[in-house]
Amino acid sequence: MDITRIEAAAERLRGNVRRTPLLSSAALDAIAGRRVLVKAECLQHTGSFKARGGWAAISALTAEERACGVIAYSSGNHAQGVARAARALGVHAVIVMPSDAPRSKIDGTRAYGAELVFYDRATGDREALGAGIAEERGLTLILPYDHPEVIAGQGTAGLEIAEQAAEMGVREAEVVVCCGGGGFTSGIALALEAHAPEMRVRPAEPTGFDDVARSLASGSKQFNAQTGGGLCDAILTPTPGTLTLPILSRLCGPGLVVEDDEVLRAMALAFRHLRLVVEPGGAVALASALFRPEAFEGHTAIATLSGGNVDPDVFRRALDLV
Amino acid sequence: MDITRIEAAAERLRGNVRRTPLLSSAALDAIAGRRVLVKAECLQHTGSFKARGGWAAISALTAEERACGVIAYSSGNHAQGVARAARALGVHAVIVMPSDAPRSKIDGTRAYGAELVFYDRATGDREALGAGIAEERGLTLILPYDHPEVIAGQGTAGLEIAEQAAEMGVREAEVVVCCGGGGFTSGIALALEAHAPEMRVRPAEPTGFDDVARSLASGSKQFNAQTGGGLCDAILTPTPGTLTLPILSRLCGPGLVVEDDEVLRAMALAFRHLRLVVEPGGAVALASALFRPEAFEGHTAIATLSGGNVDPDVFRRALDLV
Repeated sequence: MDITRIEAAAERLRGNVRRTPLLSSAALDAIAGRRVLVKAECLQHTGSFKARGGWAAISALTAEERACGVIAYSSGNHAQGVARAARALGVHAVIVMPSDAPRSKIDGTRAYGAELVFYDRATGDREALGAGIAEERGLTLILPYDHPEVIAGQGTAGLEIAEQAAEMGVREAEVVVCCGGGGFTSGIALALEAHAPEMRVRPAEPTGFDDVARSLASGSKQFNAQTGGGLCDAILTPTPGTLTLPILSRLCGPGLVVEDDEVLRAMALAFRHLRLVVEPGGAVALASALFRPEAFEGHTAIATLSGGNVDPDVFRRALDLV
Repeated sequence: MDITRIEAAAERLRGNVRRTPLLSSAALDAIAGRRVLVKAECLQHTGSFKARGGWAAISALTAEERACGVIAYSSGNHAQGVARAARALGVHAVIVMPSDAPRSKIDGTRAYGAELVFYDRATGDREALGAGIAEERGLTLILPYDHPEVIAGQGTAGLEIAEQAAEMGVREAEVVVCCGGGGFTSGIALALEAHAPEMRVRPAEPTGFDDVARSLASGSKQFNAQTGGGLCDAILTPTPGTLTLPILSRLCGPGLVVEDDEVLRAMALAFRHLRLVVEPGGAVALASALFRPEAFEGHTAIATLSGGNVDPDVFRRALDLV
């Protein structure tokens, strides 16, 4: 994995994914005690940054692989990213999703024309299920984060952050990234290493699912005790990826960990001051920037708002805190 | 009023207001039966396009006028636009607001450091109150729409629409604009007349407050029976402006009128498919594009999402419809 792969992905993505805005709000700056810029990936096609990795991975396939079709497992955002790219590029997509995924993510994936297969998050093994169907039907498996082209696609957001921050005169910053398996975080870290070397990437996770923070602190791969049941469905992965952890270890940290009620408060503040709909897993970085000011250095924090696919009942909980 | 004034305002606004994105969603296209592009002014500083007109007006004042201060009356969005520009340019601002304005708008205006004066929307006369305070304290009155620089500032959004649509290959479109007194609508119409002559502007209003639609249809200035109590607080003006009506009559129409429940449904769809927070008065144009397809011609409708300053209790009503 290096910067040339990210730059090549950026070429393929041009015109097919959005250059999302880097926004700010004086009210959020006041809460954080420093300038906070947000990379609004909730405005990305499919409502999350996963449209980048999906497009990067599928556009890199050979004609033969495209003809056979692809399979992905996902709690819903990677699902939509893969399904959208697959449909646009004429590739059949099978998506394995937990049956308790947010309704908006299931409906969204279906709307992109994907074939859905459900499993029980508590008892099923999505990796085994996905690998089995891939084998049986000759499909190419598009892993959600442990995949070089997916990491490269997510990293294109890092190229944009470097460019947009420089346009604002910002060259030094801590860049907080909502972190599940580490694809988005490691992709952004590689992009910034090359294009904004004075920025440092900080992975952000919810309490109870802080495998990356603990892995970085301990120097060895750590696991979460549970893999479901949390508010932040998009980033509840069991452990850092095999490809991503070495990148995270070399370039990122220390990790930041926030409580679910802080995530809901960050969603409420994004509603009020940014007029953006952010899902829980996409608000973890903003919550860190706002509510862990002592954990940051420097004048500027940049937080990814990674996604905005949230069901109304969860959003209502955030509105109660406005 | 002509295009040179809008272009001059655009120069003064550069770097001080946002170039907001022109977004789309396949799901919304499917509902409308044509391509729908949305100009996301809810992402503008202060949460509405009014930041444009406020900046244009205050930046056009003489040094002497700036030293004396300004006054504006507003249901809350013009208030914030004027207050933000005034603070940034070192001008004292007095804002006259209805006491039943949304909490978010009152708090936002206060946060920009303005001096607030409240009146009762049912019994008070904001124009007389504003003119009286202006006279007494020597303040310059920044009218919300019947003001050449305000119209020019709002028109800068039209320059962006012309440019952004052309980048997408769109030159012909019906451009639906949420319409109160007509400042935004007439400014955009003037900008498009010069830069996208194949586009036509359609004012959109809520039922019961369709003074502009009726004025255009009848050829003479019409009034609304009531001036308050509607869902769409931002655009409940009694009658078209003296400066704006001739522009609207020459360039715009016919008007579109939607029901409050359609406005709430448009807000719900913006939540789900665009991940944007839109206020009722800012969702009227999108509601028209989605739910009045028979009233449109051509392949593309462009709808302004004029603002996103909405209190949680109103937003919950929209979430019930997701």
